[in-house]
Amino acid sequence: MIVVKEHIRKLKAYEPGIQPKPGERVIKLNTNENPYPPSDEVFKAIIQECTEQIRYYPDPRSQRLRQTIASVLDISQDQVLCGNGSDEILRILLRTFTEKKDRIGYYEPSYSYYATLGRTHDLKLVPTPLGDNFLEPPFPNTEGMRLFFLANPNSPLGFSLRPEFVSEIASSCQGILVIDEAYADFAQWNCLSLLKKHPNVIITRSLSKSYSLAGMRVGFALAASNWIHHMDKVRDHYNLNRIAQAAACVALRERVHFEENLRRVLSTRERVAAILQTMGYQIVPSQANFLFVRIQQKYPAQEVYRRLLERGILVRYFDQDGLRDGLRVSIGTDAEMDSLIEILRGL
Amino acid sequence: MIVVKEHIRKLKAYEPGIQPKPGERVIKLNTNENPYPPSDEVFKAIIQECTEQIRYYPDPRSQRLRQTIASVLDISQDQVLCGNGSDEILRILLRTFTEKKDRIGYYEPSYSYYATLGRTHDLKLVPTPLGDNFLEPPFPNTEGMRLFFLANPNSPLGFSLRPEFVSEIASSCQGILVIDEAYADFAQWNCLSLLKKHPNVIITRSLSKSYSLAGMRVGFALAASNWIHHMDKVRDHYNLNRIAQAAACVALRERVHFEENLRRVLSTRERVAAILQTMGYQIVPSQANFLFVRIQQKYPAQEVYRRLLERGILVRYFDQDGLRDGLRVSIGTDAEMDSLIEILRGL
Repeated sequence: MIVVKEHIRKLKAYEPGIQPKPGERVIKLNTNENPYPPSDEVFKAIIQECTEQIRYYPDPRSQRLRQTIASVLDISQDQVLCGNGSDEILRILLRTFTEKKDRIGYYEPSYSYYATLGRTHDLKLVPTPLGDNFLEPPFPNTEGMRLFFLANPNSPLGFSLRPEFVSEIASSCQGILVIDEAYADFAQWNCLSLLKKHPNVIITRSLSKSYSLAGMRVGFALAASNWIHHMDKVRDHYNLNRIAQAAACVALRERVHFEENLRRVLSTRERVAAILQTMGYQIVPSQANFLFVRIQQKYPAQEVYRRLLERGILVRYFDQDGLRDGLRVSIGTDAEMDSLIEILRGL
Repeated sequence: MIVVKEHIRKLKAYEPGIQPKPGERVIKLNTNENPYPPSDEVFKAIIQECTEQIRYYPDPRSQRLRQTIASVLDISQDQVLCGNGSDEILRILLRTFTEKKDRIGYYEPSYSYYATLGRTHDLKLVPTPLGDNFLEPPFPNTEGMRLFFLANPNSPLGFSLRPEFVSEIASSCQGILVIDEAYADFAQWNCLSLLKKHPNVIITRSLSKSYSLAGMRVGFALAASNWIHHMDKVRDHYNLNRIAQAAACVALRERVHFEENLRRVLSTRERVAAILQTMGYQIVPSQANFLFVRIQQKYPAQEVYRRLLERGILVRYFDQDGLRDGLRVSIGTDAEMDSLIEILRGL
């Protein structure tokens, strides 16, 4: 008797944000991509990689990329593991530290993929409700938990918990505290320093947002070398292709371009947040490259979402508790954000 | 108490074949890459993909690639699932159909990654010894097994079981019969037709060997749409980057280039097999892009491996039962193979 495992059969697939069809003209503010491209040097690196060497397997350990990450972040390269997007890193974490029926935790709302991934692995999900005061959320329940996933900055809400508070969570956590810093480059602080202080902290990062490389799928984990050693055994052995490795190395080294893109995104974020507030929208103070905009106007959030979509602007509406009264809007170019504001004014 | 799961802690990492260091001049005949590059059209497709669109996520479903595979193989696109190499596909299979302590089977020797992957998932491994008569191996033990992995052609031995025999295995198998056809393009037959006949057959394929794209990491599964539907929920949601999708689509469409590369590899394989046989080596009849060469000369296989390595030729020696008396030699260019033959003559 062949059967798909019961927990997989029941699983509802994770729904990534809508992707426009090729050629479709939309303003895409729904999946937090960077509105500015990576440096020209990144494209040059990709083209340089287009040689007949492509018929060879890539470096299975992504050695040059690990060295680059270590050097940029000033840590040791045996504390770095590279993945096919941070999605692969998250999955490796589950495989290394959990098995069936183990407990994992996270704040709710936060990145909904933690729950999807937990269900895929038939784990027990223990969410801690975030409450209304994001800057001082309840201390999470981490008892008996193998892993606690902390998206910091939070997605989809955009606030960021201070390292001091995160440090307290790490201290009280018996399992591993995974700090998902996919958006940390856009924040005023990050938790990198906690790696030294807390052996149970593992940080995940992504090149999809701040490095403008969502299309290349590169993420990484930072952790004590002992954890990296075991996690490394679990990944697919050639997990990053040649071009992803080459592009990521150069993107990380192009600091001036990186800082300039960051500065532009942050400046637009602050400008747009201020305008939306004067229009009566409530904005969660954002440390990320998106705004969570609470809609208390004549139309409910889902209706505003639909009206924006009709006019060619894609934003994200989450049909779940704590999020139904708002929309997550990625920071696009100034022109894109002005189009959004204009349409919102006309509603 | 933080612990890495016991079965992961004990795990020995899978050892991929040695990769030469950048700039190192070696003749690389150890990981079955194609000696000829993909078509120029593939490089053009990669360069065309180098636009600022790279800042956007790729198509999560690899839709165009699935359509291309479906059209080239004349099956329905809902029977296709794309993965970051067939390694990802194999892992997705375990996740979909097995859980802790379930039994999986395979012939031994065959691709050793099945066992590594099984250990990573804490499964019970039930190998069927292949015996000496490869063309009529013992009927495998598939009782109570969730998955049976059949590398056909076998790696590292290179022989291929006939579809009629594989069909009998499928009929007797209560679980899923995974036919790993990574090398099937080099063989006289394949098992594609069994998909219609046996709902419990899943075929995996790779673009790493016959399509010269090892560096890009693209593999796929072919199966009844019901299996694909469930497997699809288990993969990372953006598992193939933009460039891998674009390159793979074009590589699959360039039939003339593909056939020409294939013809050259097969012609070299037959020529080299004949020469080595006249030199007294026993060659397993190969349906793949490598030869398993049994060494009954004055030096044992491991010593021949070392001597070849010293002279800059990388081949593969497997320190395991049934394989210690031979070397697996990938088919390189004619010039590369002539260098190998010359060195072997001088031993």
